[in-house]
Amino acid sequence: MTILTPNPNPPFNITRLSHIVLTSRDLDKTRYFYETGLGFEVTEQDSERLCLRAIEENSHHSLIFEKTTSDGPGLCRHIGYRMFSDEDIKAAHDYFNARGETASFVERPNQGLTLRLNDGVGVPIEFCATMDQDTCRMQKFHTHAGGKLAFLDHIQIACHDVAGAYTWYNDLGFRLSEYTAKDGTDEMWGVWLKRKNNTQDVVFGNGPGPRLHHFAYHTPEIANVIHAADVMASLGLADSMDRAPGRHGIGNAFFLYFRDPDGNRIELFTSHYNVIDIDHAPKRWELSDTRRSQLWGFPAPKKWFFEATEFETVVVKKPVMEATPVTLEDFLKNW
Amino acid sequence: MTILTPNPNPPFNITRLSHIVLTSRDLDKTRYFYETGLGFEVTEQDSERLCLRAIEENSHHSLIFEKTTSDGPGLCRHIGYRMFSDEDIKAAHDYFNARGETASFVERPNQGLTLRLNDGVGVPIEFCATMDQDTCRMQKFHTHAGGKLAFLDHIQIACHDVAGAYTWYNDLGFRLSEYTAKDGTDEMWGVWLKRKNNTQDVVFGNGPGPRLHHFAYHTPEIANVIHAADVMASLGLADSMDRAPGRHGIGNAFFLYFRDPDGNRIELFTSHYNVIDIDHAPKRWELSDTRRSQLWGFPAPKKWFFEATEFETVVVKKPVMEATPVTLEDFLKNW
Amino acid sequence: MTILTPNPNPPFNITRLSHIVLTSRDLDKTRYFYETGLGFEVTEQDSERLCLRAIEENSHHSLIFEKTTSDGPGLCRHIGYRMFSDEDIKAAHDYFNARGETASFVERPNQGLTLRLNDGVGVPIEFCATMDQDTCRMQKFHTHAGGKLAFLDHIQIACHDVAGAYTWYNDLGFRLSEYTAKDGTDEMWGVWLKRKNNTQDVVFGNGPGPRLHHFAYHTPEIANVIHAADVMASLGLADSMDRAPGRHGIGNAFFLYFRDPDGNRIELFTSHYNVIDIDHAPKRWELSDTRRSQLWGFPAPKKWFFEATEFETVVVKKPVMEATPVTLEDFLKNW
Amino acid sequence: MTILTPNPNPPFNITRLSHIVLTSRDLDKTRYFYETGLGFEVTEQDSERLCLRAIEENSHHSLIFEKTTSDGPGLCRHIGYRMFSDEDIKAAHDYFNARGETASFVERPNQGLTLRLNDGVGVPIEFCATMDQDTCRMQKFHTHAGGKLAFLDHIQIACHDVAGAYTWYNDLGFRLSEYTAKDGTDEMWGVWLKRKNNTQDVVFGNGPGPRLHHFAYHTPEIANVIHAADVMASLGLADSMDRAPGRHGIGNAFFLYFRDPDGNRIELFTSHYNVIDIDHAPKRWELSDTRRSQLWGFPAPKKWFFEATEFETVVVKKPVMEATPVTLEDFLKNW
Repeated sequence: MTILTPNPNPPFNITRLSHIVLTSRDLDKTRYFYETGLGFEVTEQDSERLCLRAIEENSHHSLIFEKTTSDGPGLCRHIGYRMFSDEDIKAAHDYFNARGETASFVERPNQGLTLRLNDGVGVPIEFCATMDQDTCRMQKFHTHAGGKLAFLDHIQIACHDVAGAYTWYNDLGFRLSEYTAKDGTDEMWGVWLKRKNNTQDVVFGNGPGPRLHHFAYHTPEIANVIHAADVMASLGLADSMDRAPGRHGIGNAFFLYFRDPDGNRIELFTSHYNVIDIDHAPKRWELSDTRRSQLWGFPAPKKWFFEATEFETVVVKKPVMEATPVTLEDFLKNW
Repeated sequence: MTILTPNPNPPFNITRLSHIVLTSRDLDKTRYFYETGLGFEVTEQDSERLCLRAIEENSHHSLIFEKTTSDGPGLCRHIGYRMFSDEDIKAAHDYFNARGETASFVERPNQGLTLRLNDGVGVPIEFCATMDQDTCRMQKFHTHAGGKLAFLDHIQIACHDVAGAYTWYNDLGFRLSEYTAKDGTDEMWGVWLKRKNNTQDVVFGNGPGPRLHHFAYHTPEIANVIHAADVMASLGLADSMDRAPGRHGIGNAFFLYFRDPDGNRIELFTSHYNVIDIDHAPKRWELSDTRRSQLWGFPAPKKWFFEATEFETVVVKKPVMEATPVTLEDFLKNW
Repeated sequence: MTILTPNPNPPFNITRLSHIVLTSRDLDKTRYFYETGLGFEVTEQDSERLCLRAIEENSHHSLIFEKTTSDGPGLCRHIGYRMFSDEDIKAAHDYFNARGETASFVERPNQGLTLRLNDGVGVPIEFCATMDQDTCRMQKFHTHAGGKLAFLDHIQIACHDVAGAYTWYNDLGFRLSEYTAKDGTDEMWGVWLKRKNNTQDVVFGNGPGPRLHHFAYHTPEIANVIHAADVMASLGLADSMDRAPGRHGIGNAFFLYFRDPDGNRIELFTSHYNVIDIDHAPKRWELSDTRRSQLWGFPAPKKWFFEATEFETVVVKKPVMEATPVTLEDFLKNW
Repeated sequence: MTILTPNPNPPFNITRLSHIVLTSRDLDKTRYFYETGLGFEVTEQDSERLCLRAIEENSHHSLIFEKTTSDGPGLCRHIGYRMFSDEDIKAAHDYFNARGETASFVERPNQGLTLRLNDGVGVPIEFCATMDQDTCRMQKFHTHAGGKLAFLDHIQIACHDVAGAYTWYNDLGFRLSEYTAKDGTDEMWGVWLKRKNNTQDVVFGNGPGPRLHHFAYHTPEIANVIHAADVMASLGLADSMDRAPGRHGIGNAFFLYFRDPDGNRIELFTSHYNVIDIDHAPKRWELSDTRRSQLWGFPAPKKWFFEATEFETVVVKKPVMEATPVTLEDFLKNW
């Protein structure tokens, strides 16, 4: 598929990625990982729910864990996006239902009007425009800890149908900032899609899906990323790292990845860039060019490529494209 | 004046601050200051014009100096804003002229369709949607130098009529992120206005105006700001600093200010934050609260408060509000 | 006076600056400043004494506050230096007493054999070789806070007789790394003297003295110094800053100064360098060259130059040299 | 073997590691790697020799490459240490020869009196006290580039007889700061030995030897280490990395390793700590505790453990101890 013409007049105004809702087998363990370890603020916890947010976030939550009695790994219940106003939410309700996609209003604590549906590739998503507001910790510098995470930036979805996802989100006004294509072809392996001013709110990468590969929080300094690693190590959580620090070619992020107690993957990163202008062309990377995943350092290990969080009750499908990543394990054989 | 209702449906889509055009008595001296000192990239220079941009900028210029034969201090020829598309530019042309404001198309090298007018308080501004594009230096890390400046972020205008400026820009969809008001009143001393996702594209602060108080470039790390100071010192340019590093309460910026060879003031800063959501309320600061200008450290000296770059051919007017800042000189008398 | 020949075979082995003992009117207030604010570890506190140390220090204390009932500003009770072994302490006892300087053994909690005397310019100093040891917080990264201070590095003494101090310490094997002299003369305004491998353990600068001008802790990153300022501000302690961040020409330190609740001055800094080799010549600075105090930025205000902590029961004398520093107040008059 | 009693009165005063002399097949390629890439200063180059130093070094060289016509990998010609004075060098000459170890004076350009011998395990070492001095680039901030390396800090030797090396250096006054021993035994796998004030000048680790495993330069900030990786990548030298960034438990260094064009390994690191006091006990690590090599992240790959630079004309011997490291390849099998 070729690059789509961006939609300059989407039917409603989605502004950004908003929040993620996951299951947890043990909310206290989850809290230790995110609050004590990574430095998140707990805005609410009871026996059923743990709400978290980062340093620059005034909204009630960007990350929610809901208690599960299941023994299995964590599941994602939905991805939350923000629209600009309730008028946008209502317009979206009508738009989706008119297209034959079932979109229904749901009640969510601490949020205003909220609309739920599945996106074009089956990911459960919810839209709201407002959320309970409270002054963030940005200027309470003495409370900054762990990775000093500033805000939820993006998610990555392992996806069986990247082209389908791209088309669905493009119609809603998401814009392509960078992409990976099979060498010399138009077949898209991965798309970096954005509504807010930087490179991505959501990434779809080829693989069995839909599954939540990771969610990513931004921190303003390289040393904060490394300090997070140091802190996790001194708290006995070093084993939760599943990819060592490095620099992605795509998006230019200096990154580090952890797995939480339920196996969900979180990326801490710094250094994205702005994509605003109409003449800012999407940047192409060949699939065989490993610099898109790391400008330097070793490839990610197999687990990083193949393990991800399933969406609750959503069936995982085989990917359209056959493509095998170069894993750390493969790389070392020839090194 | 009270806080205005933001305009969710502006008549055209201004996306961000784009560029600044200033005069220079000696382009080589100017180049030494910006390129050798602060680390800007020169995209073009001839005997009449010097075009500069920062590390993450793909567009041809965010800063232009035009040779002047005048002996006086630097003048600002105009402020450039970006709109999303040429359709927006055309709509703006019709909109302003219908309102009785003279807006005319002008030819500018390296830019697409460009519209020029004076804003509601007399600042000469120009809008374009496209500009020559070329891959930036973001991933040519070996070329990063000086303050490692990433992108032009905002300008501040000393303004005789802050309320007038606020109204004019609010109509065009600019949104208020923070503001300073006379203690306990609704009289606005300063407004932080934004189109892109962070806190400000343009600030209007009470004072004789309109004059360009400073323009500001973002750098991603605190140590980059300090390294810029060190580099300027080792190049013999230490005297060009006119405010030592500190942390603004408003906008949370860690800042440093220099004056270029023509007296224009540039701010290097890091750490702004996102303002996107409809329920993100503007943050109020009382005029008497010096923490808005510095969370710690000393006040700025008189020069910083009272000296600024005039706009060519624009008459400077006395401010509507009487308000005297606490200068470093005043502060030291009672310390 | 000319530069003295360093003494390669001192009569005993002083290894480094060790600790400082000061008075406090309110130990809880002092603890809030140093522990909550700057991030020090409290190793002991009772109603009479507060013992503190920094992140990389295994020894029991590098900073002690003793409760005073006096209403006046803080006093320094003594400066502690470390010798390599108890044999060195004993040799020092004999050496000083043979020279007619009264040196006596004293009992100090948590320390081994300790010797007390006044140095050549009247500063009460104590030597010990051992102190209670306990694993430091270096690899407990989750406990690092405030300025992330690593270790006590040096002190600066305002001194009526810099030449006398230099001679006294040179005899004991202290070596000159940098110095300031009256322009074009051999008259020393200040001497940077060292035993450990970097530039200074103790500095003597011309002024009414002896008085403790400041003590300085090292932190490994520029951003840590700035974070300390941010933290102090968010804790309501911003007013305790008495010199904004800057870069000293002498010693190359990136610095920041605070005054504690009793008025004692502490410097947080990063970036010293090694002085080890015999052919590493002392670096000379002319007194009139303000770059020795700041490579960039404004001069320090009057208070920084003229206020200091007196040594308990030690009479302050008029300095030998007449020299007036350029204060911030002076600087601004001509700027 | 148990921990040896340090020698407080060594027969002469070795002060620090000084320099390393290696062969290069192509001095221009070597220069590109070290000067353009890592940011070293070239103090001299002709067709036969390339002399390099780091930002804070006043001495003529800390790293020398000598042209070789050999096709093989780089060889180390000798390790240079500094003594305090020529008197120390002369005393060493007599001391070693009296012990039956052949120590001879040699002529070296840009150095004073120089003594050469093989250490107790066969490493060719040279001692000098003086070297040509010239002001370093510390305060020429605009010249700082690449990894902003400050000074040569230490070397690590793969050694067939760690106990023998420890004994030999302990006699000369080197002190043990940390060590690794076979679990629950006194058998030393590795010793961290120091003369200067921090944790190590030379490390001996069990393995076929003697071979130079790596030499290490200090840089003051974490972001500098990462910037070096970024710069190497943008210069096309990313493949020269042979261990991704991480934190050593031993010595607390945040590290990154590269291999130069001749295969020699260089470590860039930050964050060591002081070891000065007599009661600062050596820190023990069990051989099976992988945290000594990395507090977090993956183990080093096989190459890092098994490849090293041979010393010219020195026969490599099988190690006394049998011990197999956990390599990245091994780790991944069970992960």
